[in-house]
Amino acid sequence: MNIKNAIKNFNELEQLQNAYHYTMGITNFDGNTVAPKNSYKARGLALSVLSGEVYKKFINKEVKELLAFLKENEKELNFLMTKKVDRYIEDYEKTSKIPMNEYIEYTKLQNESNHAWEEAKKNNTYETFAPYIQKMFDTNKRFATYRDNTKKPYDILLDDFEKGMEMKDIDNFFNYLKKEVVPIIKYSVKEYKGIRDDFLTRKFPINKQKELSYILTDILKMDRNNFTIAESEHPFTTGLNNYDVRFTTHYYEDMIASSFYSTMHEAGHAIYGLNHGMELNGSILLGGASNGIHESQSRFYENLIGRSKEFINYIYPTMVKLFPDQLADVTADEFFKAVNKPKTSLIRIEADELTYSLHIMVRYEIERMMFEDDINVKELPAIWNSKYEQYLGITPPNDTKGILQDVHWSFGLIGYFPSYALGSAYASQFIAKMKETVNFNKEMAKGNFTNINKWLKENIQKYGAIYTPKELIQKACNEEFNPKYYCDYLKNKFTSL
Amino acid sequence: MNIKNAIKNFNELEQLQNAYHYTMGITNFDGNTVAPKNSYKARGLALSVLSGEVYKKFINKEVKELLAFLKENEKELNFLMTKKVDRYIEDYEKTSKIPMNEYIEYTKLQNESNHAWEEAKKNNTYETFAPYIQKMFDTNKRFATYRDNTKKPYDILLDDFEKGMEMKDIDNFFNYLKKEVVPIIKYSVKEYKGIRDDFLTRKFPINKQKELSYILTDILKMDRNNFTIAESEHPFTTGLNNYDVRFTTHYYEDMIASSFYSTMHEAGHAIYGLNHGMELNGSILLGGASNGIHESQSRFYENLIGRSKEFINYIYPTMVKLFPDQLADVTADEFFKAVNKPKTSLIRIEADELTYSLHIMVRYEIERMMFEDDINVKELPAIWNSKYEQYLGITPPNDTKGILQDVHWSFGLIGYFPSYALGSAYASQFIAKMKETVNFNKEMAKGNFTNINKWLKENIQKYGAIYTPKELIQKACNEEFNPKYYCDYLKNKFTSL
Repeated sequence: MNIKNAIKNFNELEQLQNAYHYTMGITNFDGNTVAPKNSYKARGLALSVLSGEVYKKFINKEVKELLAFLKENEKELNFLMTKKVDRYIEDYEKTSKIPMNEYIEYTKLQNESNHAWEEAKKNNTYETFAPYIQKMFDTNKRFATYRDNTKKPYDILLDDFEKGMEMKDIDNFFNYLKKEVVPIIKYSVKEYKGIRDDFLTRKFPINKQKELSYILTDILKMDRNNFTIAESEHPFTTGLNNYDVRFTTHYYEDMIASSFYSTMHEAGHAIYGLNHGMELNGSILLGGASNGIHESQSRFYENLIGRSKEFINYIYPTMVKLFPDQLADVTADEFFKAVNKPKTSLIRIEADELTYSLHIMVRYEIERMMFEDDINVKELPAIWNSKYEQYLGITPPNDTKGILQDVHWSFGLIGYFPSYALGSAYASQFIAKMKETVNFNKEMAKGNFTNINKWLKENIQKYGAIYTPKELIQKACNEEFNPKYYCDYLKNKFTSL
Repeated sequence: MNIKNAIKNFNELEQLQNAYHYTMGITNFDGNTVAPKNSYKARGLALSVLSGEVYKKFINKEVKELLAFLKENEKELNFLMTKKVDRYIEDYEKTSKIPMNEYIEYTKLQNESNHAWEEAKKNNTYETFAPYIQKMFDTNKRFATYRDNTKKPYDILLDDFEKGMEMKDIDNFFNYLKKEVVPIIKYSVKEYKGIRDDFLTRKFPINKQKELSYILTDILKMDRNNFTIAESEHPFTTGLNNYDVRFTTHYYEDMIASSFYSTMHEAGHAIYGLNHGMELNGSILLGGASNGIHESQSRFYENLIGRSKEFINYIYPTMVKLFPDQLADVTADEFFKAVNKPKTSLIRIEADELTYSLHIMVRYEIERMMFEDDINVKELPAIWNSKYEQYLGITPPNDTKGILQDVHWSFGLIGYFPSYALGSAYASQFIAKMKETVNFNKEMAKGNFTNINKWLKENIQKYGAIYTPKELIQKACNEEFNPKYYCDYLKNKFTSL
């Protein structure tokens, strides 16, 4: 092997990886948007067969030798290539420790399990989904042990979603939040009880809500030739490359805030997807630095912009024009207060900015218990409900509104939830830094996103997965992650609504 | 190799074939529906890379030996397996004669060419698309020669889309139509000139048109769990298996007949896709006997049902309820006449039932000339226009409304057009047979599709691609293909509107 050939082979491997990633990504996107209900079995089978193909193509002696050769000759590679090679080696190490048949079985299990979850949620039958939770936790624990039996399995999973984060880091983060934020929650839920928000559940025509979604993305300067908005039960974003990003939302006639804020949230993910450096297209370094960093971008647009007084003042006249019958008797300030009103609520994705992280803590603590204390899945609904009572003072009336509400465990996404709370905290830290050079509040008040988008692109988004979250935060903020910014932001906002 | 292992290997091959077919099919469907405009390049690259993978997986010594072994031991296989093996061997023979690099280049060319066509059509610049037409004809001619240099290339292509049909058959068919149908066209275009159809271009709200689409598919007894309706520039159907069929339509506010009849047409394709025998799911025998047979089903629902007096009488009160402002002053009989009014028109997909086949003849004759007379692509617009003048007495004002109107050549679908006209003719022959046992007109008048659907399912649809078109027509009608039914139907209908 010489370096020229090795690079050529590597480029071919990358093109192949991208081809599978693209078509399987589209197939999943389709499955969650337009595909007919009964299509899931055949789709599951097709995807599991292809995941076996992908395993065979990427986990074998030739690829291993190629990667080793490139690593040895790192000096001859450009910076981007070294990063790509490192990432392939990392993925190789992870995947190759899992036997192929178990790997394929797992993709089949994900499909079945997701379907079982949908049915259980619909019918409020936790007992039909419980065996899948058990299997998902068992399988993930086993896979983690295959990968490194010297570490705690849950630490390995946390690191998968947020590199460099272990239980002790997440514990510290949540303990800090508990100390700093929980008192504000107690205060502000009571203090702001009287805020009027009845108008948010008036009937807002869905075609007008759809119009609003595109008005928002136009304001955020997103190019309609490069992205599209679809609809799905649970909003999500699929970013395939700088020319092909899709996000979804869900329109409820009597919940204007739902499509408004899910559009702002997913637009944040989508802007990240559209702003990767062009040189990353078709490479393994697309997709963002981590789940937490991705979530920092979505929270940024959803909360720091979308729930700010400045942006609401800017967009509100447009909304009154779109919804004259629904909003004529409501002022911008009333709307601002209504969408920020802190409430103890049951459903994570409908939670306000302040109480949101409590929902995450419940999930994190349960995952931690499943790994560390080996509890039985039968006990989970009771544990869930008691934690909601403890943190939020509210008990779910049924499992559909309790432990069955989230899709994540059905896909085996365990260790994922903490990244939601980290994302909010990262976003506050980024904005503090941004404000040193960008007149953030003034620009937002004018609906001018040129400089705001540019800062995020230049400091975060363009790097894709080149840097780890820790490296990226250090580069962008010139200091390490510090949850103080987040707590200060919440304290400041929710003591002066 | 023993028979048990061979069957096992074959089943694995089939599952793999289906996995690629499914995900690449979804990717194409997505590309034509929701994908953002600028996504085409990356999609084209991904699909061409995977088409190379598919080639390598299916065209090699092992597969060849496996298929030969199964063919030799045919006696030990069940009926369905023998049909599958035959089909794999046939496809193997076709594909293996084309060198892999040319095969991959061709899929890339298709993507580029399709994009060039879209731009040329939009901007009325035939000259930018002409080189692609040349390449597409050249490549298809070369591929046909690789496959069998003892036959005429165009005969090989015609046979691809309609097995058993060569130029002489198509010539005979069109000559018969010219003799029998052209005189009726001349008569009826003049005779029915006064039919009122102004109301078809009133403003019909798009959300109501969408509602109508689902009302129609409900009447046709299509299960919404198994199919979905999307939107695209050109309506089409993607049938993946009995649980996953999608069709598209296009809603124009001022063209109610467009979405109505494209829905009926694509519903016909979709019903075929939903009614394959369950044992064909995941196999190479899904997808219909031929393009012509598929088109017979779509034409059946679009024209023989959708444009019949009985069905219009049945559906019309519902339409008046949906569109009271637009249709209150129009009777069912006026609507029936308007959607059947024969007109000489420029655009194939908007043509009435009677003049439709003339549009096909123009295309067939041009394709035939490209192969047999070796004419230059620069001459094509002039030839196109003179043929429209000759057959329809009308000259396109520009190429967008002339030679650039159809997508087919951009994808290299050459030899495909005749199947549209054959489909209409097959449909008339099927209905004549069906009427021996089903009271077709009476059932339609009641909106009762149980027996009509059942006849089509039992005699045509359930067989998928098990039989050739010729075999299928013989089985269903107890005689060979006869265009007389079609001509009689047109004569009868268009002399008594």
